[in-house]
Amino acid sequence: MSHNFVDEDDLESIALGAPLLGTGGGGDPYIGKLIAREVIRRKGKVRMILLESVPDDALVIASAMMGAPTVFVEKIPSGQEAVSAFRGLEEFLGEKAYATYSIEAGGLNSTIPIGTAASLGLPVVDADGMGRAFPEIQMVSPSIYGLPATPMSLADEKGNVVILERTITNEWTERFARTLTIDMGGSAMIALYPLRGHQAKRALISGSISYARRIGEELRSAWARKGDPLRAVLRATRGQVIFVGKVVDLERRTEGGFARGTVRLRGTGSDERKNLLIRFQNENLVAELDGSVIACVPDLISILDAETAIPITTEGLRYGLRSVVVAIPCHRKWRTRKGLELVGPGYFGYSAAYRPVRRTRG
Amino acid sequence: MSHNFVDEDDLESIALGAPLLGTGGGGDPYIGKLIAREVIRRKGKVRMILLESVPDDALVIASAMMGAPTVFVEKIPSGQEAVSAFRGLEEFLGEKAYATYSIEAGGLNSTIPIGTAASLGLPVVDADGMGRAFPEIQMVSPSIYGLPATPMSLADEKGNVVILERTITNEWTERFARTLTIDMGGSAMIALYPLRGHQAKRALISGSISYARRIGEELRSAWARKGDPLRAVLRATRGQVIFVGKVVDLERRTEGGFARGTVRLRGTGSDERKNLLIRFQNENLVAELDGSVIACVPDLISILDAETAIPITTEGLRYGLRSVVVAIPCHRKWRTRKGLELVGPGYFGYSAAYRPVRRTRG
Repeated sequence: MSHNFVDEDDLESIALGAPLLGTGGGGDPYIGKLIAREVIRRKGKVRMILLESVPDDALVIASAMMGAPTVFVEKIPSGQEAVSAFRGLEEFLGEKAYATYSIEAGGLNSTIPIGTAASLGLPVVDADGMGRAFPEIQMVSPSIYGLPATPMSLADEKGNVVILERTITNEWTERFARTLTIDMGGSAMIALYPLRGHQAKRALISGSISYARRIGEELRSAWARKGDPLRAVLRATRGQVIFVGKVVDLERRTEGGFARGTVRLRGTGSDERKNLLIRFQNENLVAELDGSVIACVPDLISILDAETAIPITTEGLRYGLRSVVVAIPCHRKWRTRKGLELVGPGYFGYSAAYRPVRRTRG
Repeated sequence: MSHNFVDEDDLESIALGAPLLGTGGGGDPYIGKLIAREVIRRKGKVRMILLESVPDDALVIASAMMGAPTVFVEKIPSGQEAVSAFRGLEEFLGEKAYATYSIEAGGLNSTIPIGTAASLGLPVVDADGMGRAFPEIQMVSPSIYGLPATPMSLADEKGNVVILERTITNEWTERFARTLTIDMGGSAMIALYPLRGHQAKRALISGSISYARRIGEELRSAWARKGDPLRAVLRATRGQVIFVGKVVDLERRTEGGFARGTVRLRGTGSDERKNLLIRFQNENLVAELDGSVIACVPDLISILDAETAIPITTEGLRYGLRSVVVAIPCHRKWRTRKGLELVGPGYFGYSAAYRPVRRTRG
């Protein structure tokens, strides 16, 4: 970690790097950045603390947004809902949190907790529960350790606050929260996975926010010196290029609270005459090269703009886009048996066995 | 009130009388009766207290079941869920309840609170929030007085407990609770409308449980002395016969968590050649005689078996059933402007203006 706070400039870098970890989903960090920037301007920069520095008995609570990213674009939250959700959960627990953290460093939820931290005068932990983005609440590393998402709160912009007190599994929490989110108009601010320090240190993925920031910094620095932004991304992430081509087909629908669909790219250059099909549910799940799976969850599959290396979210995809598809190894927690049960290709209904891309992070 | 407790025999009478106030919906009290009877056998009869005797600062909480009655028939609860929901809400509030009460004296929810009271060793208040049954959470007399349904809890047989902490209106509570109930498998046990004594005395309908019991007692006494059970019902309720005929058409579907549909009766005797159409959403809402509305919500429309005067619930309707349709005046709270806004024909999408049937109760 290069420095122990997040200011406006860091926000820019995080918001730039996070969509790469978002793998098409996770929502556009732009909205979260706007919220956080406004609060930071008023209240000052946010202290970012190392996961390892959280006291064992301290309470940390994740702050996040839930819903289909395609809805976020039309229904921009004020930031007050995140505070309502967070305060609602603190009141339910009868205890103030020591810090907040990100459940999902990929996409929107990288910056949401920073805004919440700024509003509440709390530090944010440099960690997350995914090391990337995933579409469902139970798909976090705390689930690997049997830690519950509940008690969890949801708040909407109208003033409704719901507590999911106790559920039998994190999958049930996902189910209840998903329909409530749809009732709330397609998106909600949430506070969840209240953890003690000793649980957080075991279960969370350390360094995720500074990882997103580093990716953003590398990109910005490559642009500034007219260098190669793709190479900068690959260096920061240990990723590899799996395809170069352009979007020739796109099917996208909002269904059950998710953005689902497929995107097809036709190869250019050395990939000429080849086709890559990517299937997504908010996030890119599986990449098939001429019918064979070449990368899949939990590894990261990201589509970058060929020119700028800016990661393209699912809702930003459009016909004719010239792109580079990158695969990045997931955190090693996901490559365990329990990790693959939670977020491997089988969970999403694909029969393909998980075939890891080179190297793991962490 | 003839006596201040509810024993097994009283349960029989309540379970017999309540479906008349259920107006086709509210669920079959049989299940609630079984649960309550089992607990009463183990723990002894339940003390029933007058609404007027509740201390002003005492906390009372309603105990109920929520969902489509057509589902209750297939998914019978154990009684433990009602206790989980009740205890969950007490824990959330940080206070033990002084008593429980019925939110809906018509149907299943007449007996559910008696089982909860027996399980928890609490008294049950002789009152309810409807004086009948209605399909939605906000359709209770406390809504007329601006009292919130929240905090409210829901529990299922799997062990999930959800708290709706704070919503902006009781209509939002209904919306959230309805989808959660569907997620929970179509039905859930709930605890809601936590009220102080002074609020309960103003907002609830006094005497509803003993009213249901009196109807049941009159019916049983008429059968025992081979008297006229229909006359006994009319005497106990000040109701009037609006149609005599048999079921010739029935359309019923489970939709959005409700049992919706229509039943058509062809007249017999003095109603020969006439047709009565009844539209229902769990409860009977509107009765049209040859196309003209002759009774509608909030007044009570009940279909009785012509032979025994036993009220027939929506799910008990069948082709060829010989029936007497009775209209009963609703409680006067519902005939106010605010009451009619909440549960008048307009709310349910009917353009007909409310035309009260003779006399009001209370």
